[in-house]
Amino acid sequence: MLPKLTFVLGGASSGKSAFAENLVMQSGAPRVYIATSQAFDDEMTAKIDAHILARGPDWHTIEAPTDASAALAQVETGQIVLFDCATMWLSNQMLAQADIATETQSLVAALRACKGRVVIVSNEVGMGVVPDNSLARQFRDAQGKLNQHLAGISDLAVFVVAGQPLVLKGTLG
Amino acid sequence: MLPKLTFVLGGASSGKSAFAENLVMQSGAPRVYIATSQAFDDEMTAKIDAHILARGPDWHTIEAPTDASAALAQVETGQIVLFDCATMWLSNQMLAQADIATETQSLVAALRACKGRVVIVSNEVGMGVVPDNSLARQFRDAQGKLNQHLAGISDLAVFVVAGQPLVLKGTLG
Amino acid sequence: MLPKLTFVLGGASSGKSAFAENLVMQSGAPRVYIATSQAFDDEMTAKIDAHILARGPDWHTIEAPTDASAALAQVETGQIVLFDCATMWLSNQMLAQADIATETQSLVAALRACKGRVVIVSNEVGMGVVPDNSLARQFRDAQGKLNQHLAGISDLAVFVVAGQPLVLKGTLG
Repeated sequence: MLPKLTFVLGGASSGKSAFAENLVMQSGAPRVYIATSQAFDDEMTAKIDAHILARGPDWHTIEAPTDASAALAQVETGQIVLFDCATMWLSNQMLAQADIATETQSLVAALRACKGRVVIVSNEVGMGVVPDNSLARQFRDAQGKLNQHLAGISDLAVFVVAGQPLVLKGTLG
Repeated sequence: MLPKLTFVLGGASSGKSAFAENLVMQSGAPRVYIATSQAFDDEMTAKIDAHILARGPDWHTIEAPTDASAALAQVETGQIVLFDCATMWLSNQMLAQADIATETQSLVAALRACKGRVVIVSNEVGMGVVPDNSLARQFRDAQGKLNQHLAGISDLAVFVVAGQPLVLKGTLG
Repeated sequence: MLPKLTFVLGGASSGKSAFAENLVMQSGAPRVYIATSQAFDDEMTAKIDAHILARGPDWHTIEAPTDASAALAQVETGQIVLFDCATMWLSNQMLAQADIATETQSLVAALRACKGRVVIVSNEVGMGVVPDNSLARQFRDAQGKLNQHLAGISDLAVFVVAGQPLVLKGTLG
């Protein structure tokens, strides 16, 4: 039985999304997918298409590249949400030059107010060398803080490494 | 007692190779080293030489920069293999413009068919910011998928951080 | 009760410093902060100032951008030290073109000889793709080896991910 809020963190191609999808599918509840991606180029379009294909038709999808709070407000009691992912959400906020602290507060409030259970996926991006450019450094700092925040409010937090879960907080049932 | 297949993952200079070598040496079985490196420049030659020196003379070494399957087929019952590393293997495949999915299937089949026990080492490369160039992004995606695959077929999977093991799967005896 | 030497490792903005500070504050002992930062630009000055502000006034601070051994020698029995961080220390040594092996030996000896307990913070920087430039590669190799060394001599080693601790060695009380 999944708790109210589950945080799934992992590196690129770590299997974090598949792991999170699996948690949702094992729950047996009606599934909602909150899609955060905006396709700006062919590489991203291909990635999104591959994910949709892998997920299959049994999902109610809400496209929410920027307004995640509105999407979370549409979720009904008993549903379980896969929010994939916080990294894309953050990237979209930064592109829109939004105030990250304000938007994070709004996201956290919406996650707490959501009537269904939520599994939120995010990327670990802070374990390489310091990036050359300032924007990349700003992004990884913002991502690190957001990940701390999301892990902090979660009931269950899992770090996925090579497809395998390391539990950071709570109990993986 | 090591199981049939052990996967040792870690970052750069994390101590993963030393940890894997130690597992092999503690097993007491005759040791085979499958060497995947190709020295293209002085920096790599120096690294390879330092590793050979650190390993010492009690190893039967098979040089296998590209054809790991042939190397694994030479291993005899009772021997224990250190395969170091899957990252170099992948890099060599990508340089040779091989089909990675096909080569991975072939590697997995060879690992399963190997008469000896195998400890295979790999790099975690997906926990930094998104790389600027497309080839680096392709590489980290391929590496992440390969790591998932290898962890998935392993009996024991260990994530080495600062020389210390975090068990991802199975039990570290 | 914290042991003699605690090693706290984490990525950028992982919450490692806050976690380490919390360990020190929970100990109830008189606190010493060994500050390793040198502010070369506004971005770093802002970071340092934010950290000082977050830490508050209840700390005896010793500025030690290069000579950590001298700083550790000033610590008195019963005090507890937050050494933040080994990455900045390493960076300062490399900028000064010091011999890293010699300096590391000296740091390790000073940590062992220190009359108080020490919590030392460091960065994980080896889990991204191979950096383009040679200096960055040298740095991440040196950092990786230093982290192995520090974890090796520590009584307690913790890997902080999204603000949550994964114990690498010893027991988190």
